[in-house]
Amino acid sequence: MAKGNKLTSRSENYADWYNELVRKADLAENSAVRGCMVIKPYGYAIWERMQQGLDKMFKDTGHVNAYFPLFIPKSFLSREADHVEGFAKECAVVTHYRLKNDPDGKGVVVEPEARMEEELLVRPTSETIIWSTYKDWIQSYRDLPILVNQWANVVRWELRTRMFLRTAEFLWQEGHTAHATEQEAREEALRMLHVYGDFAEEQLAIPVIRGVKSERERFAGALDTYTIEGLMQDGKALQCGTSHFLGQNFAKAFDVTFANKDNKQEHVWATSWGVSTRLMGALIMTHSDDSGLVLPPSLATLQVVFVPIYRKDDERVAVVEKCHALAAQLKDAGIRVKVDDDDQKKPGWKFNEWELKGVPIRIAIGPRDLANGKMEVARRDLKSKEVVDLPEQVTAFVKPLLDEIQSNLYNRAKDHREANTHRVDTWDQFQEALKADIPGFLYAPWDGTTETEERIQELTKATIRCIPMDNELEEGVDMLTGKPSKQRVLFAKAY
Amino acid sequence: MAKGNKLTSRSENYADWYNELVRKADLAENSAVRGCMVIKPYGYAIWERMQQGLDKMFKDTGHVNAYFPLFIPKSFLSREADHVEGFAKECAVVTHYRLKNDPDGKGVVVEPEARMEEELLVRPTSETIIWSTYKDWIQSYRDLPILVNQWANVVRWELRTRMFLRTAEFLWQEGHTAHATEQEAREEALRMLHVYGDFAEEQLAIPVIRGVKSERERFAGALDTYTIEGLMQDGKALQCGTSHFLGQNFAKAFDVTFANKDNKQEHVWATSWGVSTRLMGALIMTHSDDSGLVLPPSLATLQVVFVPIYRKDDERVAVVEKCHALAAQLKDAGIRVKVDDDDQKKPGWKFNEWELKGVPIRIAIGPRDLANGKMEVARRDLKSKEVVDLPEQVTAFVKPLLDEIQSNLYNRAKDHREANTHRVDTWDQFQEALKADIPGFLYAPWDGTTETEERIQELTKATIRCIPMDNELEEGVDMLTGKPSKQRVLFAKAY
Repeated sequence: MAKGNKLTSRSENYADWYNELVRKADLAENSAVRGCMVIKPYGYAIWERMQQGLDKMFKDTGHVNAYFPLFIPKSFLSREADHVEGFAKECAVVTHYRLKNDPDGKGVVVEPEARMEEELLVRPTSETIIWSTYKDWIQSYRDLPILVNQWANVVRWELRTRMFLRTAEFLWQEGHTAHATEQEAREEALRMLHVYGDFAEEQLAIPVIRGVKSERERFAGALDTYTIEGLMQDGKALQCGTSHFLGQNFAKAFDVTFANKDNKQEHVWATSWGVSTRLMGALIMTHSDDSGLVLPPSLATLQVVFVPIYRKDDERVAVVEKCHALAAQLKDAGIRVKVDDDDQKKPGWKFNEWELKGVPIRIAIGPRDLANGKMEVARRDLKSKEVVDLPEQVTAFVKPLLDEIQSNLYNRAKDHREANTHRVDTWDQFQEALKADIPGFLYAPWDGTTETEERIQELTKATIRCIPMDNELEEGVDMLTGKPSKQRVLFAKAY
Repeated sequence: MAKGNKLTSRSENYADWYNELVRKADLAENSAVRGCMVIKPYGYAIWERMQQGLDKMFKDTGHVNAYFPLFIPKSFLSREADHVEGFAKECAVVTHYRLKNDPDGKGVVVEPEARMEEELLVRPTSETIIWSTYKDWIQSYRDLPILVNQWANVVRWELRTRMFLRTAEFLWQEGHTAHATEQEAREEALRMLHVYGDFAEEQLAIPVIRGVKSERERFAGALDTYTIEGLMQDGKALQCGTSHFLGQNFAKAFDVTFANKDNKQEHVWATSWGVSTRLMGALIMTHSDDSGLVLPPSLATLQVVFVPIYRKDDERVAVVEKCHALAAQLKDAGIRVKVDDDDQKKPGWKFNEWELKGVPIRIAIGPRDLANGKMEVARRDLKSKEVVDLPEQVTAFVKPLLDEIQSNLYNRAKDHREANTHRVDTWDQFQEALKADIPGFLYAPWDGTTETEERIQELTKATIRCIPMDNELEEGVDMLTGKPSKQRVLFAKAY
C-alpha cells in the first residue's frame, strides 16, 4: 500500500488504487462487521446529492416514498420460485429475539428460549413483503397504478466484498409499482430505465449503454430486466442500475387481484427498479485518477475551493479577505464553495488534499497575484493550472467553467468507452480482445442460448452485459458454437 | 371499530381512536411481521418533512451525516456494562447467513452449516459500533470534535407495540459526537436538547418541557439524559426526544483516547441524541380530533385543498378553472396546494377525506360563489367555515391564515397542558390527580431516591418524566416517604 496520501497508481494495481482512494479520500472504510462498510461524512454527502437528484426525478415522474419492514418472514421468500433460488443463498437470518448473561462467565449469549416462531430474513430486496402489503391496497382498477419508492438498507451475505461495489449491507432505493395492464407496467419499467440512464449521464457524467439482460442475467422473479451498463477505466463493465418488468409473478405469488372496468378479477402487473451505493463505485472508477477522486461539478459537495497563499501576517489578511469576498459572490449564486484558510496547513498540503478529494476548481491567490490583479485557477479534471485576470464577475467566470468540466468528464468517459468498444466475429478475436490491458465492450454474435452464454463465461469470465435497446438485427454465426446468430450482443468482463 | 371513514371518538376509547386514525388517514398500518409497521406514502411524506426540518437544524449547528453498519457484533454490546443491561433483552439476533431447500418437503429452512462465527445484533442503537470506529478516527485534539449524525432504522424487540409509539423496527436519527473536554460535551448535549425543543415547538407546534431524567430513567450508558416531554390530549406524557451526555463511558469501553495540547493521552468525551418516528405519534395525539388528523401547516404535505362545487358540466368548467387559477398563485408563493377536481367523488366525500387527512385550509367554490365573488374557507384546526370575498391576492389571504393556524395549534396545546398541570403536595392529592380523566403533569416533591421513584411507579404507574431545566429549588417533604425533598419534579403517566 502506498504511504501517506499517495495512491498506488492505476497501472500498477487498479484494485489497490481503488481501495486506497476510497479510504484516503474519506469516502468509506471497512467496519468491524465482515463485509459491511462505514460510509464517512465526505462520501455520504456525495450519496446524499445522488439521493436528492434521483428523488426529484422519481417525484417528477409521479412516484411517492413509503417504508416497509426490514424483516421478511422466511415463508414469504418461497412463494415465488425463481426469487427464492436467487436470494435464499446469501441472506442474514434472524432466529432469536433476546440475549442473556452467559451463565459460564463474562459477556452475553443467545437466550435459547427466545427463538422466533418463524425465522425472519433481513431484506435482500422487498418484492415479497411489499406485494403481501399491496394485496390489501388493491381491490379495483381505481386503486391502480401504485407508484411507490423506498429508500432503505438491504443485506446480501456476499462472500467477497469490496467497498461500494459489493458489500453485505448496502443503501439503495427500490421502486415497486403495480399496474392494471401489461403495457403500462412495461412502459413503467422502461421509463425508469431512462430515468436511471439520464441521471447517470447528466448528473454522474457516466455514459451508459441501455439494454435488456439475457434470460440468465435477469433478476430472480422478473420476465425482463433492463439495465444501464458503464465501462470503467480498466475496461470492465459495471452494472449501474436495473429496472424489472415482473409480469404477474408476484401478484400470483401473493394473490393480488383487482376488479377491472368490466368487473372481472385479474392479477396485477408489476415492476421494480433500483440503484444503490454501487453508483459511488461507478463514479470513482469512471473519472478518478492517480492523484485521487475526480468529481463532476453536479455531484461535488464542494465545487470550488480557494487557497490563500502568504508568508507574512500582513500578506495573510489581504489575500484571505479577497478569497472570502470572491467566495461570497459564488455562494450567493448557489455555488458550493470553501475558503481553506486553515493556518496550520501549508498550501502544498492543501493542494494535495483537495486534489485527493476531487474538488473541480481550485483557485489560489497570493500577494503578487493580488498586486497584479490575477488568480491561479486549477482544473481537477485536466490537472491544469492557469493564471488569469481576476474577473470582474467571478461567478460569470466560474459557472461556465463548471459546465465545461461536467461536459468534459462525460465526453472523456465516452471517448474512453468508444475507443474500447469493438466488434468481434470469431472466437480468436474475442479471446484476444479480452486479454488486452483494457478488455472493453465487445459486440459479438451469439446463438441466443443460455448454454452458450454459460460456456463463454466459463472459458473467458466475460458475460453478456445486455442486448442494447433498439439493437440492429444482423444475421451471423455464433463465435463459439457456429450456430446461427440473429444479432450481436454486448459482452464484457464485469464487476 | 367504527365503520367507514368514521372514527371511534376520543372520549369513547382513546387507544381505538388513535389506531383507527393512523390507519384511516393513510399514515401507517401493521405489517405481516409482528411489531413492524408499513409507513404509507401519506404518512411517510410527513416524516420526510420532519427529516428535512431536523436535518437543516443539524447542519446549521455544524453536524454532518454518515452511515454505520446495521449489525453489531454481540461482544460489542457487552463492553459497556449498563448498555448491555439496557439493550440485550430486546434485540434481533442474526445467527445464520444462508437458507437451503427443506429436505423434507416444500419451502426453505435455515442451513445449519451456515452459522455465524459470532452472532450479530440488529442495532438497537449505535454507540458501540460507532465508538469502535471512532477509535481509528481520533488520535489528537486536532481530530476533535466529531459531529456526526446518522439517519437509520433500528430494532428493539418490544413485546407490546403500537404504531409510531413503540414498534419493533423504527426510523430515527442518532447523533454521536466526540469532544476533547467534558464541558464541550455537556454543551453539545444541551445544544441538541434545545434543537429538539425548538423543532417540536416551532415546527410540530408541540409545547414541551425540557429537563433532565432521573438516574433511573437515564439512557443505558449515559451520565445524564436530557429530554423533551409533551403532554398528550389524554393527559399522558410522551417523551419526544432525548440527548445524552455519555461522559467517557464509551471511550473507555472502546479505548478511544487522544493526545491533548500537552501531548498527554486522555479519553474522549461523548454525547448521543435521537428522535424517531415516534414524533408522528406525538403529532397525532397533540392536535388531532374526532374527525381525524390535524396537521400544523409547517408539516402538512398539503396546506390548502380546493374543492370545486358544481352540478352541471357548464358550471364545472368555470369553477374548476377558478380553483386552478387561485391554486397556481399559491403554488408560485411556495404554498403546497391541490385542486381536488376528481369527477368520480362528491364534494361531501372530499370534505370528509381532507378533514380526515388534516389539511389545514379547505377552500370550496361553487357557481353562486363565483357569481358573487365569494369563496368558502374552512379551517381544519377550528372546524369552522366562513364565506369570504374572493381576495384580490389569494396568497396575501392564505399566508397569514396558515401562520395563524400554526400558532393556534401551539397555543391550544399549551393551554391544554397548562390546564392539566398541577402542583401536588400530599400522596392523597397525587393519587387523586392521577385518577382524573386527564391525569396530566404533576409537580410533586421527591426525596431524590430511586427506591421511592420505583415505589411510586408500582403504586400508581406514574413515573418521573424529568427534572425541568432551571428547576426552582424548594425545601419540602416527599409525598410518599415524608423524607426531605429539595425540589418538585415532574411526574406523569406516560406512553
